[in-house]
Amino acid sequence: MSAHVALVGAGPGDPGLLTVRGRELLVAADAVVFDRLGTERLMGLCRPGARLVDAGKAPGRAALTQEEIGRTLVDLAREGLRVVRLKGGDPFVFGRGGEEIIALADAGIPVEVVPGVTSAIAAPAYAGIPITHRAVSTSSTVVTGHEDPTKPGEQTDWDALARVPGTLVVLMGMGRLPLITERLIAAGRDPGQPAAAVQWGTTPRQQHVVATLATLHDVARARGIGSPAVVVIGDVAGLSERLAWRPQQVLKGRSVVVTRARAQASQLSEALRAHGADVIEMPVIRIEPLPADETIGGMLDRLREYRALVLTSVNGVEQLFARMAERGLDARAIHPDARIVAIGPATARALERHGLRVDTMPERHVAEGILDSLEARNREAERLRYLAETHR
Amino acid sequence: MSAHVALVGAGPGDPGLLTVRGRELLVAADAVVFDRLGTERLMGLCRPGARLVDAGKAPGRAALTQEEIGRTLVDLAREGLRVVRLKGGDPFVFGRGGEEIIALADAGIPVEVVPGVTSAIAAPAYAGIPITHRAVSTSSTVVTGHEDPTKPGEQTDWDALARVPGTLVVLMGMGRLPLITERLIAAGRDPGQPAAAVQWGTTPRQQHVVATLATLHDVARARGIGSPAVVVIGDVAGLSERLAWRPQQVLKGRSVVVTRARAQASQLSEALRAHGADVIEMPVIRIEPLPADETIGGMLDRLREYRALVLTSVNGVEQLFARMAERGLDARAIHPDARIVAIGPATARALERHGLRVDTMPERHVAEGILDSLEARNREAERLRYLAETHR
Repeated sequence: MSAHVALVGAGPGDPGLLTVRGRELLVAADAVVFDRLGTERLMGLCRPGARLVDAGKAPGRAALTQEEIGRTLVDLAREGLRVVRLKGGDPFVFGRGGEEIIALADAGIPVEVVPGVTSAIAAPAYAGIPITHRAVSTSSTVVTGHEDPTKPGEQTDWDALARVPGTLVVLMGMGRLPLITERLIAAGRDPGQPAAAVQWGTTPRQQHVVATLATLHDVARARGIGSPAVVVIGDVAGLSERLAWRPQQVLKGRSVVVTRARAQASQLSEALRAHGADVIEMPVIRIEPLPADETIGGMLDRLREYRALVLTSVNGVEQLFARMAERGLDARAIHPDARIVAIGPATARALERHGLRVDTMPERHVAEGILDSLEARNREAERLRYLAETHR
Repeated sequence: MSAHVALVGAGPGDPGLLTVRGRELLVAADAVVFDRLGTERLMGLCRPGARLVDAGKAPGRAALTQEEIGRTLVDLAREGLRVVRLKGGDPFVFGRGGEEIIALADAGIPVEVVPGVTSAIAAPAYAGIPITHRAVSTSSTVVTGHEDPTKPGEQTDWDALARVPGTLVVLMGMGRLPLITERLIAAGRDPGQPAAAVQWGTTPRQQHVVATLATLHDVARARGIGSPAVVVIGDVAGLSERLAWRPQQVLKGRSVVVTRARAQASQLSEALRAHGADVIEMPVIRIEPLPADETIGGMLDRLREYRALVLTSVNGVEQLFARMAERGLDARAIHPDARIVAIGPATARALERHGLRVDTMPERHVAEGILDSLEARNREAERLRYLAETHR
């Protein structure tokens, strides 16, 4: 593939709301330029070795300017890398995606855009608030609360927005919430209209509050709800209780750090997330092949002589077959009558993937269990030679 | 899992814009209740045997009413099935998801909501139109054009919408486009403002037109653009040419029917889609195991006696190993010195997945190529016994 930049919407925070195409590009990317908000739980998908560029604020450093981001994307693409520009939500909903396309187009670099699920819809949805609902709201307006509504020359016409029928969704509005709500009320919006704020929407940290346009700021503050949050103003906010659908999840509100090696973490992480945990992947070990070694090489050349093969981990299985492949060997190099022992079901499945059926699996899936099971079957003390892989 | 209904947003039409969670649920569903628009290219993901209920209009039959849809979902869930309610776009953007949640909640059935990428954002994006763009539009309003704007008592306040600042997106508005544009202009919206219509947005059939609010209807009609389309009114529509990003794709505009067996179709379909083809999966064959047969059974029991193994398809490899497994055999049952011949690289990879390395692969990946390659290596006419799998 030639130089190419994909602008990928990361969705609102729940990693399940990333698109299939976005995931495909992220997993394959050589370089990822990301904003933090909404992308935290996706960075674990990047392949080891991918270049990760944080475009947002970081400790001791200001955010990259839009010009710097454009230049970074162009430079990475010109190195021939597959580049993903990962943006929370959707690239075109206050994501400045258009400006980045112009920078890339000016440099002659092909662009792909992958829209995302916007937090303007999904964060309310996760709080039981539909942004449209028959007979309640037949239109929905999304605006950013980033600008100061009292500043002269501001672009957002809050007076006109106050008179918009239907639902009004304000993104990035918590910092100026009292100014925004006062301004809307002054311009004629009903102060008693239901209004909600959803913080960390779609993530396990999500919390929300429903009040009225007049009281939202005070109620949110009292409940400790601040940025980042999506504000929903309109009668649909009043449906929240009726439409609450999030199942009670046993790990909701808990953060779990998964320290397994990156390649193995995802299955555990997904199971934890399915029960509501906020999973942070932070691999503290890495599985690497041992350096080439004559002892192991010699054992592999004499593999057929062994009458038992004991595998104590999936990694052990993968390494065994990788080494065998290097020497031009396959499953047939193992004696047809050799007993094959796996420490547990995952190791057994790994052996099956390489064409081998397991003869013995101990009841206790620990190394001692293997010794027990071998002993029980070897009362006549047949001389046992085995390959033991000890890293698990 | 107990009875459970998931309201899944299918996204705007491009199957790559389905969410990861939506895909996961769809693939596992026992029953899928779907609307046609936006879901056509996803139904191939359903597992064979899943119950598919079309809730939309079908030849000779009216669409299900909202009440009938609610009752259908409740009934399916009460059968203990994993039910997916698949809706084009997002369930809460004019998707009537809220009403379905109420029906399910009233019946005591747990609900999960999976937001989707809305066509209101993605269809314009695929036409190079960002619904917000710095210094051009700082808000975006989405409305449905389903209602008649001249009917007394209609809910949509078009006069107020005319005065909304920023981008106005009208979904399902092509049928009443002249009424809507006239009404907006009469209420003060600039008739010269750029406006676009994007038909079949995000699909390979996508086409769009950019005009002005006053001319959009005539220009769209002249270009043959009708329903379903997303209408974008606002200065961002004028960016379309500058931000056009869709790469030229060699199969764009072509529809390709893939007739392979379902289990094998997806890889081919994805490759075709990546080049812009509109892929319709319509399997005309199904791969089934042969009935148990003494001839094959006897051959497998004497597998070790064979000195060559010829595999002519991935299906052949899978069936061979399935039959071997039934008899408690694995790769070690093949003689270590037997020559293993695969017809082509896909078959070779399938053998590798079962722990076997291929010795010979003919230059021409057809059955005759295998005979050539065996002949070349067997000039002394070694007696050859082989298992030939002839279905490909």
